[in-house]
Amino acid sequence: MRKAVDMPQTDPAALAELDRLRSTIDNLDAALVHLLAERFKCTQQVGQLKAAHGLPAADPDREARQIARLKSLAVEADLDPEFAADFLDFIIAEVIRHHEALQG
Amino acid sequence: MRKAVDMPQTDPAALAELDRLRSTIDNLDAALVHLLAERFKCTQQVGQLKAAHGLPAADPDREARQIARLKSLAVEADLDPEFAADFLDFIIAEVIRHHEALQG
Repeated sequence: MRKAVDMPQTDPAALAELDRLRSTIDNLDAALVHLLAERFKCTQQVGQLKAAHGLPAADPDREARQIARLKSLAVEADLDPEFAADFLDFIIAEVIRHHEALQG
Repeated sequence: MRKAVDMPQTDPAALAELDRLRSTIDNLDAALVHLLAERFKCTQQVGQLKAAHGLPAADPDREARQIARLKSLAVEADLDPEFAADFLDFIIAEVIRHHEALQG
């Protein structure tokens, strides 16, 4: 299904290496999508629980703890901690949209 | 380390359930951060390879294939396919910044 990049002037060994790396990236992306699906299952449950008990959709203290923890994990994993924080913001924005939809 | 949300008027069983879900979310987030770190290791290698061989940083055909594939995986995993596409855009924007830094 996947095809080597068609650039005749480029070293075939480099193109083979590019294909190898892209295949690994595709596997990691599949894993990321499945973990995200599982994460949203959990946050949907959190949203239902919060809606049932009148708890607010957003929780700034919890989010601050999550961001600090993920930044620290990112440093250990050699990932830019600011990117990890932006990533969490990106996901939390989506979660809050879901929760507001449940409560609204 | 983690503490139950302190809301005395809320059913303790609901707070325990909220804590349980948050603990799972924290585990999923740690896994996501480590997979992202591994993904950026691969894309850094792709960036170096592209820079060494004068290949362009962005590859719209490859990105279109990745987006279509991830949307399809998202549907199977019961994740909003538009969110999966936005997620990939978010990561690719970061990757292109890295690649341009290598080539610039």
